[in-house]
Amino acid sequence: MTEDRPFIAETTFRVRFAETDMMGIVHHSVYLVYFEEGRSEYSRQAGASYADLEARGFSLAVTGVEVRYLAPARYDERLTIRVWAEKLRSRGVTFAYEIINPETQAVLVTGKTHHICIDHNSQVRRIPEDWLNAMRSPASS
Amino acid sequence: MTEDRPFIAETTFRVRFAETDMMGIVHHSVYLVYFEEGRSEYSRQAGASYADLEARGFSLAVTGVEVRYLAPARYDERLTIRVWAEKLRSRGVTFAYEIINPETQAVLVTGKTHHICIDHNSQVRRIPEDWLNAMRSPASS
Amino acid sequence: MTEDRPFIAETTFRVRFAETDMMGIVHHSVYLVYFEEGRSEYSRQAGASYADLEARGFSLAVTGVEVRYLAPARYDERLTIRVWAEKLRSRGVTFAYEIINPETQAVLVTGKTHHICIDHNSQVRRIPEDWLNAMRSPASS
Amino acid sequence: MTEDRPFIAETTFRVRFAETDMMGIVHHSVYLVYFEEGRSEYSRQAGASYADLEARGFSLAVTGVEVRYLAPARYDERLTIRVWAEKLRSRGVTFAYEIINPETQAVLVTGKTHHICIDHNSQVRRIPEDWLNAMRSPASS
Repeated sequence: MTEDRPFIAETTFRVRFAETDMMGIVHHSVYLVYFEEGRSEYSRQAGASYADLEARGFSLAVTGVEVRYLAPARYDERLTIRVWAEKLRSRGVTFAYEIINPETQAVLVTGKTHHICIDHNSQVRRIPEDWLNAMRSPASS
Repeated sequence: MTEDRPFIAETTFRVRFAETDMMGIVHHSVYLVYFEEGRSEYSRQAGASYADLEARGFSLAVTGVEVRYLAPARYDERLTIRVWAEKLRSRGVTFAYEIINPETQAVLVTGKTHHICIDHNSQVRRIPEDWLNAMRSPASS
Repeated sequence: MTEDRPFIAETTFRVRFAETDMMGIVHHSVYLVYFEEGRSEYSRQAGASYADLEARGFSLAVTGVEVRYLAPARYDERLTIRVWAEKLRSRGVTFAYEIINPETQAVLVTGKTHHICIDHNSQVRRIPEDWLNAMRSPASS
Repeated sequence: MTEDRPFIAETTFRVRFAETDMMGIVHHSVYLVYFEEGRSEYSRQAGASYADLEARGFSLAVTGVEVRYLAPARYDERLTIRVWAEKLRSRGVTFAYEIINPETQAVLVTGKTHHICIDHNSQVRRIPEDWLNAMRSPASS
């Protein structure tokens, strides 16, 4: 892996019926849930499971999000979410996202989420070194 | 209050856009969220706040639900939820629900939820007496 | 396929973070979404896609649900949902469900959902024959 | 109303149990639903109901969102959402939001949502004049 080509985790899933709204498309709030599941997959593939981080008493609290909606997704459609770490700092992380239709390669949604590391008393903490290292140099990349 | 006329808590709210699905109606899973909010209101009106019960280390875990869907609800529609305690036992509670349109008085959804009292280690526990008494004889009824 | 051994569709997925609540477990309303996704998978495997049925102007409106919660599920846990058609009638269908942890084989949740066939004007209709036949004798069973 | 003091719609509601996650706080995706309900309230107070706009064949599709999370909210907490129109153009609107705890006046979340007007064939359209005028000069302000 070079600095220029970050590790990108991909996961593909289908839109659920309950995720649509009366416009017949995926409700815009649902993409934050897709982003989150993409992050979970990123950390699994990087060998640094987020569930483990939580079990050790740490959370990556969301401090901000930005989302751009380029085209709608519909029920039963297969979507691929691509996630990469844009910034990895001692106390914070920024992830970036692209959601595409894998058949057409059309980009439907892009976004970023910003996080700080806190413990279960809501105190800001350094991200554990081993977890941060795994995120920086995923074994599988 | 007589045995024949239980205390009924009512609360009225509007359907949110995000609660609709591509059929243009409220998704059937959302009514369980409405029921839950109805229970919260019941316990507030009974002077036995569920948030307090949680803060004291107890939860009323859901063990079962039954729902009947008679007519759909739509975005922006005002709904009234009526909640009453059908059974109040030392370790468990059953609540019953009616969701109506307050303009037409049409009954849209009915249901029941069954609960047992557990502590935060998932052990079954007796419901605290004061909480159970408030539920039995709500001050406001 | 004999009468005694119905076609069962299985699909395995992971619990998403957003599906948990402050008790640390999957919120009870979310299982209705899992059931629905299980139905979608059933109809795909049966060669009778529900998305196609919707595109042809029909819906299987939910008229009732029953759910029993036996044990909680948690974030990141893999769950397998098993779905089968319990009743297939000309105008209505009942599906039954089991959600298990595939590692331990523990049954976490069971349930049923009842449906009637309606068109997009909310009129009750006969389920299209080809769709009903595919549901009765899934190609893949 | 002067240019300097835009009409601000306020609405107060309680956090629902289902809106929390395993961190014990409101899940970050839920604030987009709160924002949306705030917009609905804005348009009701402005005399330009969003439900009416939808019924006339128009939608304000979400093209982008930005959210900043300053402090968490918890189950049963009362929240006030303040919404105002930051930009009102012939084909697009930007709304801005503040979510506060009305007891402490603490600002918990801020954000913006960007919208374009489309018809039900997903074609970009001019926002109907009467609706836009009502948004500009709300009767109740």
